[in-house]
Amino acid sequence: MCAQYCISFADVEKARVNIQDFIHLTPVLTSFILNQVTGRNLFFKCELFQKTGSFKIRGALNAIKGLIPATSEEKPKAVVTHSSGNHGQALAYAAKLEGIPAYIVVPQTAPNCKKLAIQAYGASIVYSEHSDESRENVTRRILEETEGIMVHPNQEPAVIAGQGTIAMEVLNQALRPSVKVYAAEPLNADDCYQSKLKGELTPNPYPPETIADGVKSSIGSNTWPIIRDLVDDVFTVTEDEIKYATQLVWERMKLLIEPTAGVGVAAVLSQHFQTVSPEVKNICIVLSGGNVDLTSLTWVKQAERPAPYQSVSV
Amino acid sequence: MCAQYCISFADVEKARVNIQDFIHLTPVLTSFILNQVTGRNLFFKCELFQKTGSFKIRGALNAIKGLIPATSEEKPKAVVTHSSGNHGQALAYAAKLEGIPAYIVVPQTAPNCKKLAIQAYGASIVYSEHSDESRENVTRRILEETEGIMVHPNQEPAVIAGQGTIAMEVLNQALRPSVKVYAAEPLNADDCYQSKLKGELTPNPYPPETIADGVKSSIGSNTWPIIRDLVDDVFTVTEDEIKYATQLVWERMKLLIEPTAGVGVAAVLSQHFQTVSPEVKNICIVLSGGNVDLTSLTWVKQAERPAPYQSVSV
Repeated sequence: MCAQYCISFADVEKARVNIQDFIHLTPVLTSFILNQVTGRNLFFKCELFQKTGSFKIRGALNAIKGLIPATSEEKPKAVVTHSSGNHGQALAYAAKLEGIPAYIVVPQTAPNCKKLAIQAYGASIVYSEHSDESRENVTRRILEETEGIMVHPNQEPAVIAGQGTIAMEVLNQALRPSVKVYAAEPLNADDCYQSKLKGELTPNPYPPETIADGVKSSIGSNTWPIIRDLVDDVFTVTEDEIKYATQLVWERMKLLIEPTAGVGVAAVLSQHFQTVSPEVKNICIVLSGGNVDLTSLTWVKQAERPAPYQSVSV
Repeated sequence: MCAQYCISFADVEKARVNIQDFIHLTPVLTSFILNQVTGRNLFFKCELFQKTGSFKIRGALNAIKGLIPATSEEKPKAVVTHSSGNHGQALAYAAKLEGIPAYIVVPQTAPNCKKLAIQAYGASIVYSEHSDESRENVTRRILEETEGIMVHPNQEPAVIAGQGTIAMEVLNQALRPSVKVYAAEPLNADDCYQSKLKGELTPNPYPPETIADGVKSSIGSNTWPIIRDLVDDVFTVTEDEIKYATQLVWERMKLLIEPTAGVGVAAVLSQHFQTVSPEVKNICIVLSGGNVDLTSLTWVKQAERPAPYQSVSV
């Protein structure tokens, strides 16, 4: 499927054309306080305002558009995916736009608001157990039963190309094209970091426990070469750092991001990030989504401000 | 102090000139889902993104600018106010800009994040009891001790003129100048509604219990004539309606408004509002502030969706 990588720049450009009339051009915001805390110029790409509440609609929509041939008779019978939530919502919405039934395999532990939203977009939910194995098995069964087409949340090339349109927008909106690319992930789900360290794809050995539910899945064989070659560095952050960063964006920017969107913010706030040259002054952080399960907010009370910023007024 | 009202249109225009270089021009956002639910076109003026997290900076800044004479020697020794929080933060910030000490009288029950923010802006907090009487007594004592000048949160004409600049911006940004003005308040703090009903200023008979902490104070003698003559109607909403509306804005617009900012949204969502002519199609709601005490979010779990919208997918 790939030459060097599974998609090319042309695929991203094609995706932009495919989806641009169906998505929001989300704003890029700044925060005086967060610039002060980090000593850099931060640009927040607000994909929490995107349709379906996260950037995942970009990939889902691009995949669906690719499945629809010129003649409508040949429409696929169904689309199927597994997703901790945001890709599920996105695929449900995109499929509904084209009148294709969608089946979303969801772990029973997924946030309730995401399950409700998937159903509100008219898709069918199928539950799996928490493990990768159960998820794969249930997905395979549903694909057979519905004669549907799989739209993988992060390994499908059309999805990857769709998500890439974020970078194109950011380059147009805020930054120059000479950039470094940093990845951020929870210490509790650090398969990306481990893979880079070992130089080979190293999935999480067991289902990770992290509040950043959107990044519990391991990276896969299509995204690994891209990460291996094009990501400059990976920053891992603790659960407390994620909670604190998320809360900081809530309190100071008034943006209701989900904890997964706080991972990148936490990375920039982390002590480790201070090893990045001060010449890296302008930093864009993608606030990936805003689908917070409001009934699970008990963690807010436990979130302690991590050590390095105790003395800063934020 | 007033001819007919304590301020004129010219005072608002003057306020706009005084403060425009020191505040944000906040965006006006729309929501497809909320338009669908209400059957009207809603425009949300996002004062939660305003400096100090609420619109109150407009009035506080205009008042402070009015206190500063051309020669710096005559600066006031201090400014003093009482406030459930947002005006306190705003005055603290405005006073700091001009290097004037600020003393903020705060009920001990005020949200913690608001107290911390007041202190972060460099003002001194003085605690009072929950009652109007205690608040007045403590304020009087501090005014004497500091030889300060009172900047009343809602009866000071310079403050009223400053808040009026919101309407000017909205008219420029979104709407035509032929408008109706509706007020919204909690049923548990309905002094505005009672005053209109009786045709005379009727303060809340006892300290009200409402999650909308920003509107616990009764309207006063300077604002009453304006409300009496210029507000077309007053809508009262229950605590559950406020909680539901606030949660709806969080979930669907990803904007972290404080419950007080949800009062206007609740009014537009209410059954009573359906008595407003369908010709009233374009409605601007001021999302007044975003200073939420995140450690007090237990109420989210109790918030039930009120009856009229049970069947609507939002």
